[in-house]
Amino acid sequence: MTEILFGSDNQAGVSPQVMDAILRSDDGIAVAYGDDIHSGRLNAAFSDVFEHEAFVFSAATGTAANALGLATITPPYGETICHEAAHILTTEGGAPEFYAGGSRLVGIAGSNGKIAAHDLCLVLDERMRPSRHHFACSSLSLTQATEFGTLYTLAELEALSEAAHTRGLRVHMDGARFTNALVALGASPAAMSWRAGIDVLSLGTTKNGTMNAEAVIVFDRALGRDLAYRQKRAGLLTSKMRYVSAQLLAFLDGGLWLQNARHANETAKTVADILASVPGIRLTHPVETNQIFADIEPQVTALLEKSGIRFRAWDHRHPTRHRLVMSFRDDEQKVERLRMALALALSHAQF
Amino acid sequence: MTEILFGSDNQAGVSPQVMDAILRSDDGIAVAYGDDIHSGRLNAAFSDVFEHEAFVFSAATGTAANALGLATITPPYGETICHEAAHILTTEGGAPEFYAGGSRLVGIAGSNGKIAAHDLCLVLDERMRPSRHHFACSSLSLTQATEFGTLYTLAELEALSEAAHTRGLRVHMDGARFTNALVALGASPAAMSWRAGIDVLSLGTTKNGTMNAEAVIVFDRALGRDLAYRQKRAGLLTSKMRYVSAQLLAFLDGGLWLQNARHANETAKTVADILASVPGIRLTHPVETNQIFADIEPQVTALLEKSGIRFRAWDHRHPTRHRLVMSFRDDEQKVERLRMALALALSHAQF
Amino acid sequence: MTEILFGSDNQAGVSPQVMDAILRSDDGIAVAYGDDIHSGRLNAAFSDVFEHEAFVFSAATGTAANALGLATITPPYGETICHEAAHILTTEGGAPEFYAGGSRLVGIAGSNGKIAAHDLCLVLDERMRPSRHHFACSSLSLTQATEFGTLYTLAELEALSEAAHTRGLRVHMDGARFTNALVALGASPAAMSWRAGIDVLSLGTTKNGTMNAEAVIVFDRALGRDLAYRQKRAGLLTSKMRYVSAQLLAFLDGGLWLQNARHANETAKTVADILASVPGIRLTHPVETNQIFADIEPQVTALLEKSGIRFRAWDHRHPTRHRLVMSFRDDEQKVERLRMALALALSHAQF
Amino acid sequence: MTEILFGSDNQAGVSPQVMDAILRSDDGIAVAYGDDIHSGRLNAAFSDVFEHEAFVFSAATGTAANALGLATITPPYGETICHEAAHILTTEGGAPEFYAGGSRLVGIAGSNGKIAAHDLCLVLDERMRPSRHHFACSSLSLTQATEFGTLYTLAELEALSEAAHTRGLRVHMDGARFTNALVALGASPAAMSWRAGIDVLSLGTTKNGTMNAEAVIVFDRALGRDLAYRQKRAGLLTSKMRYVSAQLLAFLDGGLWLQNARHANETAKTVADILASVPGIRLTHPVETNQIFADIEPQVTALLEKSGIRFRAWDHRHPTRHRLVMSFRDDEQKVERLRMALALALSHAQF
Repeated sequence: MTEILFGSDNQAGVSPQVMDAILRSDDGIAVAYGDDIHSGRLNAAFSDVFEHEAFVFSAATGTAANALGLATITPPYGETICHEAAHILTTEGGAPEFYAGGSRLVGIAGSNGKIAAHDLCLVLDERMRPSRHHFACSSLSLTQATEFGTLYTLAELEALSEAAHTRGLRVHMDGARFTNALVALGASPAAMSWRAGIDVLSLGTTKNGTMNAEAVIVFDRALGRDLAYRQKRAGLLTSKMRYVSAQLLAFLDGGLWLQNARHANETAKTVADILASVPGIRLTHPVETNQIFADIEPQVTALLEKSGIRFRAWDHRHPTRHRLVMSFRDDEQKVERLRMALALALSHAQF
Repeated sequence: MTEILFGSDNQAGVSPQVMDAILRSDDGIAVAYGDDIHSGRLNAAFSDVFEHEAFVFSAATGTAANALGLATITPPYGETICHEAAHILTTEGGAPEFYAGGSRLVGIAGSNGKIAAHDLCLVLDERMRPSRHHFACSSLSLTQATEFGTLYTLAELEALSEAAHTRGLRVHMDGARFTNALVALGASPAAMSWRAGIDVLSLGTTKNGTMNAEAVIVFDRALGRDLAYRQKRAGLLTSKMRYVSAQLLAFLDGGLWLQNARHANETAKTVADILASVPGIRLTHPVETNQIFADIEPQVTALLEKSGIRFRAWDHRHPTRHRLVMSFRDDEQKVERLRMALALALSHAQF
Repeated sequence: MTEILFGSDNQAGVSPQVMDAILRSDDGIAVAYGDDIHSGRLNAAFSDVFEHEAFVFSAATGTAANALGLATITPPYGETICHEAAHILTTEGGAPEFYAGGSRLVGIAGSNGKIAAHDLCLVLDERMRPSRHHFACSSLSLTQATEFGTLYTLAELEALSEAAHTRGLRVHMDGARFTNALVALGASPAAMSWRAGIDVLSLGTTKNGTMNAEAVIVFDRALGRDLAYRQKRAGLLTSKMRYVSAQLLAFLDGGLWLQNARHANETAKTVADILASVPGIRLTHPVETNQIFADIEPQVTALLEKSGIRFRAWDHRHPTRHRLVMSFRDDEQKVERLRMALALALSHAQF
Repeated sequence: MTEILFGSDNQAGVSPQVMDAILRSDDGIAVAYGDDIHSGRLNAAFSDVFEHEAFVFSAATGTAANALGLATITPPYGETICHEAAHILTTEGGAPEFYAGGSRLVGIAGSNGKIAAHDLCLVLDERMRPSRHHFACSSLSLTQATEFGTLYTLAELEALSEAAHTRGLRVHMDGARFTNALVALGASPAAMSWRAGIDVLSLGTTKNGTMNAEAVIVFDRALGRDLAYRQKRAGLLTSKMRYVSAQLLAFLDGGLWLQNARHANETAKTVADILASVPGIRLTHPVETNQIFADIEPQVTALLEKSGIRFRAWDHRHPTRHRLVMSFRDDEQKVERLRMALALALSHAQF
């Protein structure tokens, strides 16, 4: 029995157009470290899409991209405010602290993975008391789409950034699923980044169809200069950069990024509807992008597992809580397999 | 006029067999972070080749691999002894210091890029004086093949490692061009690594045909545990690891690594012979692997440049010093182009 | 009107016997960096008192002592478990993270400033899941006396250390008020440190009568070697060390440390009894050493302030919560002043 | 036989006026962490002396002061240029690298411990080539008086600072023996610091009569804010700060610092003259402040040692090279003892 994997969008492999671009960039001998023609086009391509001069630094992983981005706006004695479920806090093995040189992350609660502006102001006002006995409250990291697949509206992003900026903090966006949020909101890249007050953007592309290409994007030359040095000393400056740059260009090219994200989001809606209709399954968060969180009865989970359906237990404190993530690659057949497995499960289960 | 690039072996692109392996690993949806079937074979494949249980950690760049490897054997208050021309000292933007948390690199001189055992002993004995006012002399980094394309013999490696080990240091090998050295010496991987006293090996594959896959290899489980944490917090643990692991497996598969390195070395011999026969060009180091260093008269350099031959000025203090590097991809046609350009140059130049 | 300060025991100045020792050590010209006769006696003096070979490293502040001590048992990718009110977590400006090179502190709740063994086991078992996506759970820090002036019994310390050790962690004690705890428990230094499983002890002396002399003490030579390097590179190795060592020796000499702590504890009992008898004041934690925590009605607070009594608001979330700390220097007259101010306040206040 | 120590000025103990000030500051209970009256006067006192608003941060050691000062003007990816004999490079156990988060120190040669402006420009121009493969050349550290007791003239300091500033670097002065230089030059504190382009000054006082009080001084509020956080997280913010501040105030008070330094310098001149007159002893550097460097014949060294005269072998590569340092405490009797020991030595030695 083949397994059907819903564990994460990083399981989806590479988008065919991206693989083609990689192959096309394999065009003989080319200069290294970003002096090739593909890499030379990066800043312009992203500047065009973001309607602002952009400085783009690639990184092999989202963890590296986040840590690199945060380090440029957080002194070693600084603290970064983020949601308590933020990936940078829960699953990055201390990379943000390492890159920043010993900073601290402070998680704050908020429903559906979102920080409320009111809560942020309370926390900031409390932490901004001048005292050299404490960290300097220096940066805010927002995850868009959130860790629970939900969305900040543009107005919410703007309010949060403003709360941070007026208190002297700078703002990072963990955009591991930036594009899923973008198409869900129908927003422009500019509106969801620098116009909303984002100083540093970690733009994820790997989960949305590339092989290993994350981008840290800033809109300010001085930050870019700092990032260039930090990228190198972190060992993130690749020699055969053309293969990474080609991925990033292909990602944008012809709107592939938007198509892929839209497909993943729409598939998630379909799957969410299927799940919601099943007794013994309860969606725990609004499904606004490509992630689905649900409480699933142990019986159902066991029967789905038996049918080869694989998804992830999400919270060891809530054993019924699970996550399913859709990607650009998920087709109708995969959805159908899930539907059939659920039907089979239902026929056995008793609620 | 097409440019003919001799600047570095990292300009050579990807070996076709490696690209095929990447494409084959793009086989639908697969679990991430190393739990795929390709990644699952890594340790065994390298253990087999190295005739010893090996723990393999991939990294996107040679800089990251070196820094990661050194950090596991160098405390933050430690110093690393290396050749004064070592890449870790001259061209890695502080990555070793960053990863180790503030260590210091100490370069020592030596002809042809090699540290002499006698010199090492003198330096170590001087630096091992017990004093808490100084760094703790903790690790030795050897580059094989050296920065000048020359080779340590196995006996030399063993003597250097022993000098280090008997004084409590551990030994790292920067093997960015490990395979070029391996085939030149006709040595086994085991003989040139753990049997020669190497504790941590940065095995470069990118310069020898892969896209972006360097490996840090240790032969000790405790070091491996340390490396696993360090790899993650440095942001080097890739989600779609299968594409990296597939490269590393293809690299070994059927001896591709050895073939590629042998080809590059042999081409270098041919090119070196051509260069050596030209008045106005003098080889400055023995050509033992795939790198050629030569003093080239400015006139010749200018004329070669005019013919589209690109190579690298190597030392701003010696403006005539240049480097040419051969790769698996260099064919007879490329060599012929160089030969013709030299002939043309000679017909113009006057010595 | 003279102010009467109850803010902290670090306001108490220097014990006369310690000042005498400083003056006596000012005996002309003496070799520096610990080679003087005073410093030469340190290890022996503490080994004697602790009934175990001890390696002693002085530090100018408690923050430095804690950070130094923790760094020697916490890798840069490690996390330290502590009480959520621990000084290292709340008030040391990131020193532990800095010294360890980017570690993380994890605070856990517990009544009266104490971690319960059962809670510790739950937290450790949760955090010890093998995963390279997370920090390595590496050390436990216990504060004795606690941040709320309460005490771990010896049995509690032993149970906590054992829970940590059996899971591979090592144990640090923040003993800023070690001696206050020691005399309150009637324990021996050995029983409250290495016999209870403490690997690294930050022994505070400044709050108990010295000028600026904290000690990091380990009972293992290898840890001592590591500490020696870390002490120097943190800039904590003083040149005129005799003046610090003399303080530490005087602290022990004739049991001064025990007398001073006993006096502070007893005074705290007296003051606590006075406070407890006042309507509008409620002790919030058992007064077991020299710290008193109390909820004080705003009216009373205001009237005490007016009488020149100074003490510290402790928790901005509970504006009535205050702390008073007693020291070796507090005499009957000072207590009397407080008693009179309270009487005056009561005559005005209405409850 | 009493030993007569000429090893270092940090062996001299505490100036009586400073000890008095310490005793006077031991005036009962006082608020901690710099809110006492002594500490409150620090900035004003130094602003007055330096004729510029000054922000003063105390540190327990010169190593800490240097590392703290450099960290505020050197990013973690930055390099610091200094003389190859600079204390920060040779004898501080990696503290500058630790505090800055992984920076690199680059030593350049120069006779008599001085960097020549011409050499500095050459080095800077070479290292300022834009390249992200290298460290960012960020700061210059000048030692005044130098490690060999010699002096930069004010014009030399200005030229060096200007060379640095025009290339975007900032300038640190290691003033462990600032005052010895000040009185030797007859310069004002302003002229030898901010007017000469010094951005951050480590002002040593311990070698010149205090117990353990070094000061990092900046003339810019933003640098001061940064330093405040760094001082705390390094564990350098002392609780009983009054005892340190009192030392720093006493140091300035009535010109004690100038008197002490003048005395040490003058004694050094006397001793240098005595030494210079002895066959078998050759001064190796001009004696411009309180340090004397000399080549001393092994026979003479042995005979002096036998007479109880203690001084320091300086360079293991030149076994005859020795250093003697004079301090505020050295009196005529001590000089006489040296003179007699020399006479005795001469009567035995044969040259």
